[in-house]
Amino acid sequence: MQNLTIDAGRLWDSLHETAAFGACEGGGINRLTLTDDDKRVRDWFRRTVEALGCTVTIDEVGNMFARRPGRRDDLLPIAIGSHLDTQPTGGKFDGILGVLAGVEILRTFHDTGYVTNAPIEIINWTNEEGTRFAPAMLCSGVFAGVFDPEFAWSRTDRDGIRFDAALEGIGYKGSAKAGDHRLGAVFELHIEQGPILEAEEVQIGVVTGVQGARWYDLRLNGNTGHTGATPMRLRRNALVGASQVVLAVDGIAGEFGPDAVASVGRLDVSPNSRNVVPGEVFLTVDLRHPDDGVLEAMARAFEGRLAGIRERYGLEMDLTPIWKNPAVRFASELVDCVQAGADQAGFSHRRMVSGAGHDAAYLARVAPTTMIFVPCLGGISHNVAESTTREECAAGAQVLLNAVIAHDNTL
Amino acid sequence: MQNLTIDAGRLWDSLHETAAFGACEGGGINRLTLTDDDKRVRDWFRRTVEALGCTVTIDEVGNMFARRPGRRDDLLPIAIGSHLDTQPTGGKFDGILGVLAGVEILRTFHDTGYVTNAPIEIINWTNEEGTRFAPAMLCSGVFAGVFDPEFAWSRTDRDGIRFDAALEGIGYKGSAKAGDHRLGAVFELHIEQGPILEAEEVQIGVVTGVQGARWYDLRLNGNTGHTGATPMRLRRNALVGASQVVLAVDGIAGEFGPDAVASVGRLDVSPNSRNVVPGEVFLTVDLRHPDDGVLEAMARAFEGRLAGIRERYGLEMDLTPIWKNPAVRFASELVDCVQAGADQAGFSHRRMVSGAGHDAAYLARVAPTTMIFVPCLGGISHNVAESTTREECAAGAQVLLNAVIAHDNTL
Repeated sequence: MQNLTIDAGRLWDSLHETAAFGACEGGGINRLTLTDDDKRVRDWFRRTVEALGCTVTIDEVGNMFARRPGRRDDLLPIAIGSHLDTQPTGGKFDGILGVLAGVEILRTFHDTGYVTNAPIEIINWTNEEGTRFAPAMLCSGVFAGVFDPEFAWSRTDRDGIRFDAALEGIGYKGSAKAGDHRLGAVFELHIEQGPILEAEEVQIGVVTGVQGARWYDLRLNGNTGHTGATPMRLRRNALVGASQVVLAVDGIAGEFGPDAVASVGRLDVSPNSRNVVPGEVFLTVDLRHPDDGVLEAMARAFEGRLAGIRERYGLEMDLTPIWKNPAVRFASELVDCVQAGADQAGFSHRRMVSGAGHDAAYLARVAPTTMIFVPCLGGISHNVAESTTREECAAGAQVLLNAVIAHDNTL
Repeated sequence: MQNLTIDAGRLWDSLHETAAFGACEGGGINRLTLTDDDKRVRDWFRRTVEALGCTVTIDEVGNMFARRPGRRDDLLPIAIGSHLDTQPTGGKFDGILGVLAGVEILRTFHDTGYVTNAPIEIINWTNEEGTRFAPAMLCSGVFAGVFDPEFAWSRTDRDGIRFDAALEGIGYKGSAKAGDHRLGAVFELHIEQGPILEAEEVQIGVVTGVQGARWYDLRLNGNTGHTGATPMRLRRNALVGASQVVLAVDGIAGEFGPDAVASVGRLDVSPNSRNVVPGEVFLTVDLRHPDDGVLEAMARAFEGRLAGIRERYGLEMDLTPIWKNPAVRFASELVDCVQAGADQAGFSHRRMVSGAGHDAAYLARVAPTTMIFVPCLGGISHNVAESTTREECAAGAQVLLNAVIAHDNTL
């Protein structure tokens, strides 16, 4: 067994060097996809991997593939990837760690002269965040056949700029057809974006899949009225009904627990005035579970609970399902490689399901795929306060390296 | 017994004639206090009552008193009053009806040559609405000794303009000291601003007092988190706690019913994003009851319930009492005059307590006082859709006239 070791300091330096592209106050990064700062980090990535002997291919939606030949070029490549774009108030790790750990692995191979059996590809997926151009995970989605390239090209930002114009504007519209080349295995290292590893003091999350999710919009209508002059018996208070909905959603997670989560994240009251009984409430509902069957049962329970609340309070309700994403199970042979890689490096680990969406969730539709999580302080992400330590980043990169080699050794 | 009858058409015409001062889209009025439109309606009021033989006195905070002599000028005057200012999207009746019904009574006295025992004063109280210069009922408050004149003068609007500058600007800063002259009785006719009379198909509300009220601000703090990646057991969801508060407030009204009302009118969620567990909620609480002892018990029940919710959800809570108004009981002899006046005119009536605040609530501290309510469509006020019919306005004015004469006959 090989005992290659990544260089923790070098990885940490790269994370900080590239954080200058779009650096914003508080130590975070504002690097929306296809902006000048995105071009700068892409240029850095291309320069760096070409210096390590890679060939860079760019596809028609800007996904970047840095290929290092293996011993046997007839094998499908082993992909290591994530994304270099960030939220407007993003941190230094979300997405970026998964690409730069790949660069660190390339450097380790390069320094030691190690040659894998299969080719290695380090990938930067375009527009994972979906902030400038909705939806999220747009271009791994195109690669996986979830979206047409034309759909991606036609997305517009808030200024009316089309995705394809922005892509050409920074010189990253490639000629390769997205999804045209197959991947033999996909590994994505990412910060957890949740509090579990930190709370349990575990170093590595061995990710077995991604939760299924259902999103709804709900509008409740009752009657406004003067808070002093409207007797309780004559009220149709939309906020009282909405509060029952919030508690019903929270309760459903408890009933289908411990792996269920359910949330009302947004709630807008109208007219939202101290002395007016609320006449209208808009709220959003987010239900998730690793098992699609359980998720379906949660959705049915939610809709049933709503009917009861509508009747009890005499409210009108307008429920709109707006997004439905099936649960994803990762490739068990790759999950095993990650677990073996963590054991080999002596890191504590636990199996877990990703609560958030990732490029890997789409890629799992077209290639054996898995993910590795490292802790992040307080579970915080999409925030300049996002924090993962030098040691935690290094641990993730080392497990990634070990897992890739373990898998490559089976080929 | 006199059988004077007000002129329904003339009252209705005056309501529409003066609605031109500040007329806004939708048939409503935008006539904030001490604006040019307020000056125009004040000028109209002065012109009209002077033509009916009244002497107009203006006090140092702009309250206007139109005095018609009685047979015995040693008696304290009988006051009929309300306010001519409106909300920015006000209707044609809130406040205005109470002043113009007084004008209609003057006209009826004038046309018939009727002379009361006591002098009659028709009063326009400055800044009842409190929208431009907070707080509401400012100048009846000064008259009643609740506020100092200096306090009123120093209020500023959103543009930084002081109350006294605005008052001088429209030429309505008088020389009379506010509260210097005593009133023998105060009658205020007003739209109900609630749905009870309409729901019960009753024509006249015989108002026996004004509810006591307590207002609070409440801030709840928990933790934000990713809705997918934060397990239920690690959440401190401020919106779940806030929903329990909304239901506790609603429940308290039920427990202390049927005369209790309790409401959360405003609720702001932060960060208020679909896929973020809410970390902070700000909400307002409004508790009211006609009996101060019961209101105190409601407040204690509310605070106890809060403690339970704080503990159950591990939230931080910051409760700020921001307003406390004692319950008001109107003068029973005047209440009886109103009831007799409704009977005399053949209108259905019910006794009720005002849910909203009114100038009469402060005046009751310095003079025997009562109010008369007429229905308003759907209980709607502070809205251009505010609607009371010609017949309802006339019924209110007739009961007001009957009540004033009944009281005057006892002097």
